Amino acid sequence: MAKNVEGFEFEQRHGKERVRVARVWKSKDGKQQFVVEWRVSINLLSDCVNSYVRDDNSDIVATDTMKNTVYAKAKECSEILSVEDFAILLAKHFTSFYSQVTTAIVKIVEKPWERVNVDGQPHDHGFKLGSEKHTTEAIVKKSGALQLTSGIEGLSVLKTTKSGFEGFVRDKYTILPDTRERMLATEVTALWRYSYESLYSVPKKPLYFTEKYLDVKRVLLDTFFGSPKEGVYSPSVQATLYQMAKAALNRFPDIASIQLKMPNIHFIPVNLSNKNGQFVKFDDDVYLPTDEPHGSIEASLSCSRSKM
Amino acid sequence: MAKNVEGFEFEQRHGKERVRVARVWKSKDGKQQFVVEWRVSINLLSDCVNSYVRDDNSDIVATDTMKNTVYAKAKECSEILSVEDFAILLAKHFTSFYSQVTTAIVKIVEKPWERVNVDGQPHDHGFKLGSEKHTTEAIVKKSGALQLTSGIEGLSVLKTTKSGFEGFVRDKYTILPDTRERMLATEVTALWRYSYESLYSVPKKPLYFTEKYLDVKRVLLDTFFGSPKEGVYSPSVQATLYQMAKAALNRFPDIASIQLKMPNIHFIPVNLSNKNGQFVKFDDDVYLPTDEPHGSIEASLSCSRSKM
Amino acid sequence: MAKNVEGFEFEQRHGKERVRVARVWKSKDGKQQFVVEWRVSINLLSDCVNSYVRDDNSDIVATDTMKNTVYAKAKECSEILSVEDFAILLAKHFTSFYSQVTTAIVKIVEKPWERVNVDGQPHDHGFKLGSEKHTTEAIVKKSGALQLTSGIEGLSVLKTTKSGFEGFVRDKYTILPDTRERMLATEVTALWRYSYESLYSVPKKPLYFTEKYLDVKRVLLDTFFGSPKEGVYSPSVQATLYQMAKAALNRFPDIASIQLKMPNIHFIPVNLSNKNGQFVKFDDDVYLPTDEPHGSIEASLSCSRSKM
Amino acid sequence: MAKNVEGFEFEQRHGKERVRVARVWKSKDGKQQFVVEWRVSINLLSDCVNSYVRDDNSDIVATDTMKNTVYAKAKECSEILSVEDFAILLAKHFTSFYSQVTTAIVKIVEKPWERVNVDGQPHDHGFKLGSEKHTTEAIVKKSGALQLTSGIEGLSVLKTTKSGFEGFVRDKYTILPDTRERMLATEVTALWRYSYESLYSVPKKPLYFTEKYLDVKRVLLDTFFGSPKEGVYSPSVQATLYQMAKAALNRFPDIASIQLKMPNIHFIPVNLSNKNGQFVKFDDDVYLPTDEPHGSIEASLSCSRSKM
Repeated sequence: MAKNVEGFEFEQRHGKERVRVARVWKSKDGKQQFVVEWRVSINLLSDCVNSYVRDDNSDIVATDTMKNTVYAKAKECSEILSVEDFAILLAKHFTSFYSQVTTAIVKIVEKPWERVNVDGQPHDHGFKLGSEKHTTEAIVKKSGALQLTSGIEGLSVLKTTKSGFEGFVRDKYTILPDTRERMLATEVTALWRYSYESLYSVPKKPLYFTEKYLDVKRVLLDTFFGSPKEGVYSPSVQATLYQMAKAALNRFPDIASIQLKMPNIHFIPVNLSNKNGQFVKFDDDVYLPTDEPHGSIEASLSCSRSKM
Repeated sequence: MAKNVEGFEFEQRHGKERVRVARVWKSKDGKQQFVVEWRVSINLLSDCVNSYVRDDNSDIVATDTMKNTVYAKAKECSEILSVEDFAILLAKHFTSFYSQVTTAIVKIVEKPWERVNVDGQPHDHGFKLGSEKHTTEAIVKKSGALQLTSGIEGLSVLKTTKSGFEGFVRDKYTILPDTRERMLATEVTALWRYSYESLYSVPKKPLYFTEKYLDVKRVLLDTFFGSPKEGVYSPSVQATLYQMAKAALNRFPDIASIQLKMPNIHFIPVNLSNKNGQFVKFDDDVYLPTDEPHGSIEASLSCSRSKM
Repeated sequence: MAKNVEGFEFEQRHGKERVRVARVWKSKDGKQQFVVEWRVSINLLSDCVNSYVRDDNSDIVATDTMKNTVYAKAKECSEILSVEDFAILLAKHFTSFYSQVTTAIVKIVEKPWERVNVDGQPHDHGFKLGSEKHTTEAIVKKSGALQLTSGIEGLSVLKTTKSGFEGFVRDKYTILPDTRERMLATEVTALWRYSYESLYSVPKKPLYFTEKYLDVKRVLLDTFFGSPKEGVYSPSVQATLYQMAKAALNRFPDIASIQLKMPNIHFIPVNLSNKNGQFVKFDDDVYLPTDEPHGSIEASLSCSRSKM
Repeated sequence: MAKNVEGFEFEQRHGKERVRVARVWKSKDGKQQFVVEWRVSINLLSDCVNSYVRDDNSDIVATDTMKNTVYAKAKECSEILSVEDFAILLAKHFTSFYSQVTTAIVKIVEKPWERVNVDGQPHDHGFKLGSEKHTTEAIVKKSGALQLTSGIEGLSVLKTTKSGFEGFVRDKYTILPDTRERMLATEVTALWRYSYESLYSVPKKPLYFTEKYLDVKRVLLDTFFGSPKEGVYSPSVQATLYQMAKAALNRFPDIASIQLKMPNIHFIPVNLSNKNGQFVKFDDDVYLPTDEPHGSIEASLSCSRSKM
C-alpha cells in the first residue's frame, strides 16, 4: 500500500473508532424482542494523499459520515443478523460506494447481552450482561476479496489441578522448581480466520456465524478442561494451547487458521516464614493470584493451504 | 473517633488494600475441588497517634503483617466458607489479637469463578469467570459489636421495552420529551445490611450467606424484569429501584436495610438528517448506547428499627 | 434526610454524572485563549417521594435537564472562573430554581490542560495534558449554607531515600524487617474544606480558589520532599502525612480541615537466589514496584472549631 | 517463522509481560540520586516445538527465568542508561545465552518520573509523575541484526483555534458542516525506527537515546502548535500529522521512519433548543468533549531506503 510522496514512502489509513450502536428487533407479534450492542471500528485505505500533502480534502470521507453510515445500515437491517454479517455489509458498502476507497477494515466487538431466565423461562425482553466477548474483523477489497476473522476476548478460565510444568531449561537465572501439580489460569484471546475469500462465497444461512462462534468456544473450553470427572493433564500452557487450536481446526472445515493467546496468569503458592519458623506452609491450598507479571504464550495454527 | 492532637481534631485509619488470595478445598476423595478468589481490604482504627506525632511506631501493626495474616487465616480455614464468614473471622482476629485496635473494617470482593459444565455435567475442577461480583464488609469492634453488609457489584441489566418516563418537571432547560417506550439499562450496585449486631448472633450454618447472596440477587432481578411473558412497566428508574428494595426487605427478615445505586445508562434514539432530509428515523429500533453522561439514581430503604 | 415511607425509613438522591463540558474564553483582541475541561457530577436532594412510590414524576427534575443546565450556565460565564466558583454557581442554581430541591451536591474534576511553551514562550492557544487533577465539591442548601471542598487526585510522588520504618509491632505474623533506608512512593489524594459556610462569605476575587489550589499543592509537596539538598527523613507514611496536613492548616487560615489519603505503594527490594546461591543481592538499587497490595494510610486534621 | 507441524503451518512465541523493575543510581558522594521505573515485556522466538507437540519442555526457557533475568541485568547496570540501551542489552542476552532462541523482542514502557523542584532548585532525590510515556522496542536476532523503535504514548494536546476541516466528500450520509474554526485535540502515539540495523552500529554515547526522545517530542509538539503568537492553521488532522512526521524525518538523520496515530478527539459545539427556542447558541465557546466515537487517523512516513 506504500506510495512515494515527496521522496518518502508513505502509508495511511483513516476511520472512526468506538462507534456504539444497539439494534432491537421484534417478533411479528412484537412480544419477543432481540437486542445486540456493537462497538464498531472502521478504517479505510483510500487514495487521499492530497489531504496530507496539499491541504485538499476532496477525497476524504469524513469520519463523521462513517459514523452516520453505521446507524443508517443498522436501520436497514430489518432482520436479526450476526455481527460478522454486519461487518461484511458495512465494509462492502464503503468499498462500493466510494471510488477512492480500495479496502475497508471493519472490526466489531459485541457486548455479551444474554437473555435472562425468570421462573425458569426465557424472558421476552430482559437481558443481563455476561462475560467474554464475541469479536469480528472483515477486510473487504473493491474486488470483493474478503478476509473474515472472528474471535473471543476475555475468556477467563481456571483449573485447580491436572496441570504441571517440568523438565524446562535450568540455568543460572532459574529459580522455578519442577512441578506436576499447580493451578492453571489464563484469559484466552482467540482469533480464527474463515476460509471464505470472497463476498460471494459466504454462507447465506441466517446467524450461521453466531452459531459457529458458540461451537468454537465450546470446543476450546472442552479441550482446555477435559472430561468432567477425569479432566486432562496439562504439561504446559504450550501443549494445552496446541491441543485447543488443533481441535478447532480439525472440527470446523471452514476455519482456515486459528491464533490463541493464553497468558499464564500465575497463582503463586504461599509459604510464609519468619524467625520463629514457617507459619504458612503450602499444601496445594493457599495461593496469591497476580496479574503482573504474567507469562505470555501465543501461537497460530493454519491448514497448510492458508495462513493468518 | 476524633482525638485532640496538638490543638487539632484528628482522625486516622491504616490498613492494607488489594490483598489477593485464592483458596482451594477438596472433597474427601480429593476429586471434587472448590475455589474462591478474594481481594481483601483491611483497615484498622487503633490508638497509634504516636506514630503520626512522635515518630514512635510502637503501636503500629505493619500493613505487611496484615497481609500475612490474610494468608495465615485462609490456611486455617479447613472447610469452605462464605466470603462473609471470612471477613468476620479476619476482623475479629484484629480486634482480639491487638490491644490497641478498637475496630477492624474488612472489605472483600469475590471474583466470580463459576464451575463449568462439560458434556452437560459439572466439572470436578474447572472454572470460568462470570460477570457481577459478590462483595462484603464486616466492621467489628472490640466489644464484639458487628456491622455486616453484603453486596453486588457490576450487575448490568437491560429491558428493551416496558419502560417510560413522563410527567416530570418542564422548565426552560428541559428538552427531553415524555415517553412510554424506551430502553431501560442500568448497572446495579446493591448493598444490604444484615440485622446481626454481634459476632455471637451470626448464623452458624455453613455457606448461609453465600445462599442468601444468590437469593437476594434473584429477587432483585425478578422484580426488575417482571414475569417472562408480560414483564412489568417501569414508570421511572426511581419506581423500579423502590420496588426492588422493597421486595428484598419484605422477603428477607434478617436484612435490615438495603441501598441500591442504579445509574440510568442511556440508549439514545437515533434520528439523523441532513439537507436532503431525514435518513435515519427512529422506530424503537436503532440506539446509541453511551456511558457518559449517565443519570444517577440511588436510594436506601430500611426497616424502621435499623438504618444503614 | 430520612423519611418514613410505607413503614420504611427512606433516603434518596438523584442526579447526572459524567457531564463533560469545555469552555473557551478569549482575551479582548481574541488572540490569547483560555480553556478548561470539566467533568461535572450533580446530585439533588429533593422532595420527590411520589416518583418512587406513586409513579408520579411531577416533582422530578429530569437528569437530562440537569445536563442541559451545565451547558447553559457555562455559556453564561463570560469571564474565566475557578472550578470552585462554577460548582457553587451550579449548586446555587438548583436550590434556588426548584422549590422541591433542598440541597444540591456538585462535584467537578478538572482535566489538567496546561498552556505549552514553544521557543521558551507561552503559547497563545496551545495546551498539553498534565498529570494530577484538581477536584471540588460544593454542597449548597436552600438556606444558602455552603460546604466547599477542594482536592487533588492522582499526585504520584516518590523519594529514593530518607525514608524508613522501624520499631513497629512484632508478632507471630510479622516478617517485615526494620529499616532506615527505603523508597517512599505514594499517590496522594487530598481534600480540604474551606471555612466559608455561606454562599455570601465566599471571596469574590477572580480565580481565588485556583491560586489557592496551587498554593496548597506546593505546601504539600515541599513538606513531603524537604529541602532540595537535605530532604527530610520520613519515619513512617503516618508521620509524613501528619506533617503535610499540619503544614497546610497552619499556612492557610481559610482551610478548616484537610484529609489526606496516602497509600504506601511498595517498591520491594530484589534479592534472588537459587541452589547455586544468590545472584541478585539488594544494595538499595534494584526494586520491584507493585500496585497490589498496597498500604492504606489516611487521616484528617481539623481546626478544632470545624470538622469534615 | 512458520514451521510445518503435524501437517499444519505453525508459528509461536512465548515470553513474560508486565515485569516491573525500578533502578536507582547515586552520584559518587551518594547525594544526588537517579531513578527509572520500567515495565518490561519479553517475547522469544525459539525452536521449542516439542513443548507444544510432544509434552517435552527441554527447550523452554521458563518465563519465570526471563523475569529473574530482568532483575539480574538491571543489577549489572552500574551506570544510568537509556531505556533503549537496556532493551538492547536484554534482547542481546537472550539470543546469545540460549542456543535455541533465534530472535528476542523486548518492549519497555518507562514511567514518567520527573525530578521535582523545591524552592526553585532540582531536588536531589525527589520525583513526581508526569504524563506522557517513553516506550521502546528492540528486536535482536542471533546474527546481531537489530530493529530499534522508540515512541511516545499518551501525549494529549489541544489547540483552541487555528483548525478547520472543509471541502471533504458530501454524500447522502454526510451531516458535518464545513468549518474553518474548531478545536483540535488528539492523543498522539508516535513510533519511530532508528536506522541502526546491527547491535554494533548503535551509538555508544551515554543517554544518547534519552536525549533523542526529548528532541523528537519537541519537534512534534512545535510542529503541531506553531509559533507561540501566530500558531499554524491545520486544514485537517491528516495535514498536521504529515507535517509532524516530515519534520521529524527531516530533522533527525538517524530516524529511518516514523508512524503517528492521531485520533481526532472531538469537542462538539453545543447548541441546545426546546419549544421555546434556542437557549444555548454556540459561539466558539462551549463544547462537549467526548472520547467515543473518535476519528482515527494514522500514517507512516519512511526515508525511501527503509520501511517500518
